[in-house]
Amino acid sequence: MRDGAQGEGISFSVQDKLAIVHALDDLGISWIEAGNPGSNPKDAEFFSLAKTIKLERAKLCAFGSTRKPGIKAKDDTQLRCLLDAETDIISIFGKSWDFHVKDILRVSNEENLAMIFETIEYLKSEGRNVFFDAEHFFDGWKTNPAYALSTLETALKAGADCIVLCDTNGGTFPGDISLGVAAARSVLEKGGNEFVPLLGIHAHNDTGLAVAVSIAAVQAGCTHVQGTLVGFGERCGNTCLSTLIPNLQIKLGLPCLPEGKLEKISEISRLVAEVANIPLSSSMPYVGSSAFSHKAGMHSDGVLKINQSFEHIIPSLVGNDRHLLMSEVGGRSAIAERIKKIDPAITRDHPTVKTVGEKLKTLEASGWAFDGADASFELLVRRELGYYKPFFTILAYRVISEHPTGQSIACSNAWVKVWVDGQDEIAAGEGNGPVHALDSALRRALRRFFPSLDKVRLTDYKVRVIDGQAATAAKVRVLIESSGGHHTWTTVGVSEDIIDASRMALVDSIEYKLINDKET
Amino acid sequence: MRDGAQGEGISFSVQDKLAIVHALDDLGISWIEAGNPGSNPKDAEFFSLAKTIKLERAKLCAFGSTRKPGIKAKDDTQLRCLLDAETDIISIFGKSWDFHVKDILRVSNEENLAMIFETIEYLKSEGRNVFFDAEHFFDGWKTNPAYALSTLETALKAGADCIVLCDTNGGTFPGDISLGVAAARSVLEKGGNEFVPLLGIHAHNDTGLAVAVSIAAVQAGCTHVQGTLVGFGERCGNTCLSTLIPNLQIKLGLPCLPEGKLEKISEISRLVAEVANIPLSSSMPYVGSSAFSHKAGMHSDGVLKINQSFEHIIPSLVGNDRHLLMSEVGGRSAIAERIKKIDPAITRDHPTVKTVGEKLKTLEASGWAFDGADASFELLVRRELGYYKPFFTILAYRVISEHPTGQSIACSNAWVKVWVDGQDEIAAGEGNGPVHALDSALRRALRRFFPSLDKVRLTDYKVRVIDGQAATAAKVRVLIESSGGHHTWTTVGVSEDIIDASRMALVDSIEYKLINDKET
Repeated sequence: MRDGAQGEGISFSVQDKLAIVHALDDLGISWIEAGNPGSNPKDAEFFSLAKTIKLERAKLCAFGSTRKPGIKAKDDTQLRCLLDAETDIISIFGKSWDFHVKDILRVSNEENLAMIFETIEYLKSEGRNVFFDAEHFFDGWKTNPAYALSTLETALKAGADCIVLCDTNGGTFPGDISLGVAAARSVLEKGGNEFVPLLGIHAHNDTGLAVAVSIAAVQAGCTHVQGTLVGFGERCGNTCLSTLIPNLQIKLGLPCLPEGKLEKISEISRLVAEVANIPLSSSMPYVGSSAFSHKAGMHSDGVLKINQSFEHIIPSLVGNDRHLLMSEVGGRSAIAERIKKIDPAITRDHPTVKTVGEKLKTLEASGWAFDGADASFELLVRRELGYYKPFFTILAYRVISEHPTGQSIACSNAWVKVWVDGQDEIAAGEGNGPVHALDSALRRALRRFFPSLDKVRLTDYKVRVIDGQAATAAKVRVLIESSGGHHTWTTVGVSEDIIDASRMALVDSIEYKLINDKET
Repeated sequence: MRDGAQGEGISFSVQDKLAIVHALDDLGISWIEAGNPGSNPKDAEFFSLAKTIKLERAKLCAFGSTRKPGIKAKDDTQLRCLLDAETDIISIFGKSWDFHVKDILRVSNEENLAMIFETIEYLKSEGRNVFFDAEHFFDGWKTNPAYALSTLETALKAGADCIVLCDTNGGTFPGDISLGVAAARSVLEKGGNEFVPLLGIHAHNDTGLAVAVSIAAVQAGCTHVQGTLVGFGERCGNTCLSTLIPNLQIKLGLPCLPEGKLEKISEISRLVAEVANIPLSSSMPYVGSSAFSHKAGMHSDGVLKINQSFEHIIPSLVGNDRHLLMSEVGGRSAIAERIKKIDPAITRDHPTVKTVGEKLKTLEASGWAFDGADASFELLVRRELGYYKPFFTILAYRVISEHPTGQSIACSNAWVKVWVDGQDEIAAGEGNGPVHALDSALRRALRRFFPSLDKVRLTDYKVRVIDGQAATAAKVRVLIESSGGHHTWTTVGVSEDIIDASRMALVDSIEYKLINDKET
């Protein structure tokens, strides 16, 4: 996660980071490098919040560098921040390329080794597990192998629990990676070492080979692999774990995730991309929406005859779908499954399943997405089943946003007129922005009919521009998460007008609450 | 180009295809597989137009399949279309996997060999160069090596000029590719063959290994590589040539393009993506806009001291540029470097560098992000330097979004009052949503002062909710990309009011354009 946040255009809030940590834990990832508490206040805040969260399997890891030159480890404020983060693991990067030691760090080779040794020894003495990232190991090993290997030996002697070989600039080819890993192993495993640390690989995708490099390293003996779930990271990104993990697990038979987790990888990859607000490339191996799409007529025909003819694996192994069949066979079972929750009498062959499937197709083609909006999907089904009678109607609304002369802040106000069971009501509201003003007016108008709405809070609001190329006239999708105390639900709206899209999601949110009040 | 057009969401017109052919020729590509004239009228029209175009180096290639089962090659209408395309080269694909022969094609193994032999022999007798694509060669070779190799031997005997080993389903790993290529060579090069055809590789990216697979094949003896310039293609795409070519040429010293052409690869890749109307991923190796972007402070510092420290090649070798991203993780050196472009007299120790750095930190803590918004960053610096005199001021605006009783669609309208150099002007506009209405009113108000704004188009619009937990009162960040024809720039605005955030980004976009008009 720390390296992923270094990708261009990515900026995670503390809440985003917590959401990603839970998603990665849910996938069964072992270690999460969650940030650099000594480098910026946002990461420090994250670690302070993270102390209270409970994870199923993953262990958090704080990331930083070896001590500053010329001081004692215990006097280094950055190391203090790392300890204060109170994580199970601390990752420390140090230089393994003598060129960097001389020209970037500007210290002697000996001082660099002392920095590595004393930093690790100090953190170990404070009772932490320490991972050592040997920065530029492969570049260093190509130019001065003896020195590069001596940095690993130093980390080993200082008690590092894991030694990670980094191809920081991303320029090394798989063949050289295999040789470098073998050289590292010969140092770490030589006679007399009672403890052999984990050996890891950290690759970058500057030559499009990060996945190939990581596979080569694993085949040469690495058992720890660093990467980011959808490949985000500095420059061309880090090793993409959503490609690497299926490669290792399905193709090479090397288990990476706990039983039953691999089939969640498509969903969780989309979730992480969503949090980063960067659309997941449709052509991503295994998890992309086109990964099992067939366009050429011959391919489609072949796949319909025998799946294996144009597919290298069964898409469901990674929780993905074949594009051809998604809206028919595969899709219909999934829809039936969800409709059953509303009305258990409805089976896969019920006509509503087909109608909902078709409606879904049309809506999705025009930008809707119900993946993250269960409550709106439920309302859609109820409307199709004919069970649905709206609790209220918005007769009209007007939202005004203005920036008056001589004032530095903008303000918005709105009025909404509703109709409930033969009566109408009009109310006004104001807010920080137009959507806030509309929301506030709508709630005031409905209050006297439905006092339980006072307990509903809106807990999250997301906007996704669907067709950015249309610029300010682009269509947007709004997702609203609401909470009624014990229970949280999400609704969606789509329109070229952000206010109208928000209105749809707000109305669904309120309707959903009222239906649930009535039924329970 | 033919396989690239099979990517999801790609649809080339005949004019698009001609533009791509000229671009690929300009890059120095040897062969362009331009379409399947027997499969669709658009491709047939393309080939008829293509007869008159002049290319510097590239040769066009028409693509099709072996003759239909049970008929004579000369009676096959699809082969007739291929000949009518009048290209130098005809590419023919045939089955090399016995499973496909039996279950998809549903003919005998012998008939499949006859189809391969007779098709190639016939096209050769008509005076064409023939490339044979051995479809599913690697999958076939894994399950029935003797049969897979016999299809190659058949193509060789029939006189194929090039034999291409295809990993059609994209599931084969580099190690197996090397073994498969070696097996193919042993058949093609065995004693007695007076002519040895070119040996080629055709890979797909379903395991994220297409580039690694192609390199393995070249290292095992292939001299012909098929792919698409930016990796478009069926499912997860084909081998990305803009990654492979620099890998082969710079890293392995194997020349692929004529002298002086490699440095055009970034520009031509962007052009091809533009024609396909699919944005080039910023993280693409070598040619992506982030391929040489540095965000972490330590990386930026290092690169400025010595480029090689965090760059695996010199960006200009592939016609790309270094970018230092402005962000809280970036350091003072990066800021100084950027300020230098505006005023070369300013060095790292100038007080403005510090002020800008501090301003950046404060702004980022309140939700701003400049790493994707170069133009807004430049305006921020100009304001700090005191060089900046705004071209116009918005005195007031009002945006009204309403949903009148009895109408099904919402509508928005706005008025904006501006002040330019002692004069004021008021104008109104309407739009699909409030931002569109505001944008339209602002442009109308400014038009009479700055006619050059008519040439500016907004090309992308992004919205990011920063603190979703505040729900409809949440702060949003708006990014707007504008284009003035040759040049593109991005601006940013942040506010709890989406209209106001959009207003900031719109104003920056226009100011940036006006400054550049004045200075050039």
